Amino acid sequence: MDASTLIAQLADRARIAARTLKSATYDERKSALLLIAEEITAQSAQILKANAQDMAKEPSDRLLLTPERIEAIADGVRQVANLGDPLGLILRESTLPNGLHLKQISVPFGVVGMVYEARPNVTIDAAVILIASGNAALLRGSSSAAASNAILVDVVRGALAKTSISPDVIVLVPSDDRENVKALLHARGKVDLVIPRGSASLIRMVVDESTVPTIETGAGVCHVYVDEFADLDKALPIVMNSKTHRPSVCNAAETLLVHASVAGKFLPVVLKNLSDAGVLLHCDTATQKVAQGLGIKATLATDENWCTEYGVLEMNVGIVASLDDAITHIARFGTNHTEAIVSESATSADRFIALSDCAAVMVNASTRFTDGEQMGFGAEIGISNQKLHARGPMGLEAMTTTTWIVSGNGQIRR
Amino acid sequence: MDASTLIAQLADRARIAARTLKSATYDERKSALLLIAEEITAQSAQILKANAQDMAKEPSDRLLLTPERIEAIADGVRQVANLGDPLGLILRESTLPNGLHLKQISVPFGVVGMVYEARPNVTIDAAVILIASGNAALLRGSSSAAASNAILVDVVRGALAKTSISPDVIVLVPSDDRENVKALLHARGKVDLVIPRGSASLIRMVVDESTVPTIETGAGVCHVYVDEFADLDKALPIVMNSKTHRPSVCNAAETLLVHASVAGKFLPVVLKNLSDAGVLLHCDTATQKVAQGLGIKATLATDENWCTEYGVLEMNVGIVASLDDAITHIARFGTNHTEAIVSESATSADRFIALSDCAAVMVNASTRFTDGEQMGFGAEIGISNQKLHARGPMGLEAMTTTTWIVSGNGQIRR
Repeated sequence: MDASTLIAQLADRARIAARTLKSATYDERKSALLLIAEEITAQSAQILKANAQDMAKEPSDRLLLTPERIEAIADGVRQVANLGDPLGLILRESTLPNGLHLKQISVPFGVVGMVYEARPNVTIDAAVILIASGNAALLRGSSSAAASNAILVDVVRGALAKTSISPDVIVLVPSDDRENVKALLHARGKVDLVIPRGSASLIRMVVDESTVPTIETGAGVCHVYVDEFADLDKALPIVMNSKTHRPSVCNAAETLLVHASVAGKFLPVVLKNLSDAGVLLHCDTATQKVAQGLGIKATLATDENWCTEYGVLEMNVGIVASLDDAITHIARFGTNHTEAIVSESATSADRFIALSDCAAVMVNASTRFTDGEQMGFGAEIGISNQKLHARGPMGLEAMTTTTWIVSGNGQIRR
Repeated sequence: MDASTLIAQLADRARIAARTLKSATYDERKSALLLIAEEITAQSAQILKANAQDMAKEPSDRLLLTPERIEAIADGVRQVANLGDPLGLILRESTLPNGLHLKQISVPFGVVGMVYEARPNVTIDAAVILIASGNAALLRGSSSAAASNAILVDVVRGALAKTSISPDVIVLVPSDDRENVKALLHARGKVDLVIPRGSASLIRMVVDESTVPTIETGAGVCHVYVDEFADLDKALPIVMNSKTHRPSVCNAAETLLVHASVAGKFLPVVLKNLSDAGVLLHCDTATQKVAQGLGIKATLATDENWCTEYGVLEMNVGIVASLDDAITHIARFGTNHTEAIVSESATSADRFIALSDCAAVMVNASTRFTDGEQMGFGAEIGISNQKLHARGPMGLEAMTTTTWIVSGNGQIRR
């Protein structure tokens, strides 16, 4: 069977199975999720065994499961189970002069494809968020996690088999054929939405290739701008936290921009702290001189540097003459993810907010707060880096679409 | 200059110009729109002259402007001007335990591309909806409407030149080079969103080709299902209105499905009425026999028929054994646009709603009500036929995205 026929068959079966999800009550979906969490815990030993097979072939920390990590995954499932129902919410409602009653309600997408890389926890995260939001899932993970993903999907399907929800709502797309990804991305009409999660190159491939609507996640070249009216005692921990708390994630900062009027006072302190924390520095000419004066090594930042998402302990540092110059720099090199301003001036903050064009603006806070759990969503299927449909952290609601229900008693158009 | 360089330059200029829209107040945007309406009326003669040039080359009713049509266009602009402000709406708001204040507000997309065909009124519709929602527009109409579009854009830009809003927010993309369309569809990062409006083939091309996020509009194979519990006195006008009121538009019905238990009574009446109204019939075997018994010509419907959006006075008619069979037929041949059920049974209506998967479900009403103006949006940039971002008629709100504003006093992640 060729890849498109396979994907079409899997998607059709998932769509029919999804009727059991659509007709399940919130309590039924919730119980199913709690059962999945139990089964993950119960089958921890078998999951570890399968993961060891994967690790034997191509070991990496992202791929590794430990008893603690499995328990954290199960806890995550319980958290999602206890979120409210995202379905059937009345978003708009009105009665027209002709007596027609209009109601716009939230409904599931239907069939959602996920394309992701080595981390096996994404398999469970995606499956449970999609079950909670009434969607069937076609999961296409990495071949390097094939054994781990296979058992995790078996656990989910086994748990669903004990409920009113069809196990066929969760489908693992075989990872041994790269044509399957292509077929999934072209299954418009069969698959309602595809979400990529992983490296910039994976996301770029999905966005370029997909004819199925897609949500771009990921790339974050986030900036911290220290304004002329900044409280420098707040600025230092915000910069350090934004860069060093967890450098590998998309909401970590890559670039620090300092207003010229506070650069003399702030740069020596922040460069010393960054260097002591092991951060490799890429600076503009003036900042490089400050660094060299302190005996800190710093390369001259290139355009390539200014637009790189390092994901490690490296940071660009530059001086700007004004807030508007900071905005111009960010517009040129940023990725519209998260930008932070440190300032005690409401005027500065308001102008920064008005001229920014990103998913989240932080005022006197770390860039690390652009995060579904931190923002109180309880779960996150990814952080949208585009403007269509969902922007920023995506929780359960982002996995729903809408239907208008128009009720009348025979109305026609005149 | 090659097409991608041209589009990149136009988009960059539009994005910078859009700052004047972003910083304009609602009243300023409203006054600008009212001025545009005035100028359209004032320059009616010149607009008609330009349109006559286009009509001389390739005449069509869709292309034709008349004094009445121009006045209707100006009235449409006034209507949009008087809609409320879609920007700065607070969509979600909360304060986290750590004191961070979160606010999600509506903001413009930035730069929106429109790709459309002969109708010159789309030029104005799109321009004013995008101005009202704070977006810059790259308008790419058909070369057959080149002179009409050029003067309409001139009128808009001329009006904007008298306001605080930069005329560069409205850009006409030259229609003499087909490479410009391709470049527009690949200007990801430069253009935030592309909306196609026109024929099924245009929409398909945009959806297949575009790497810029897009919203599929259009295709409507809409069904009317007459349930066993239908009030047949309501069913007849609903069927006739859905099919014949304006057959060329996407919310017109293409297929009638009748429950077997009412077919004997309803089919002779509805077939006669459809035939008298000039509707060409394509039927299943049993319905064809009923038609032939009445001396009405009817072809045997093929799979091709069942999935065709006729746009003219042709209709498929079939008998179904149950509501679930109707749903199965619709799932196979429909386009997820609008489906109507005629039934006095709340149980039937609820099941039809639950199992449908479309932008709008009509209960005892004509399919023709899936329409921005009818639904009270006041204006419509298109009807979304996909599930991402907007589903069904798209008004001003559909042209906005969101930003999170997170305000703190030095918070960092622990």
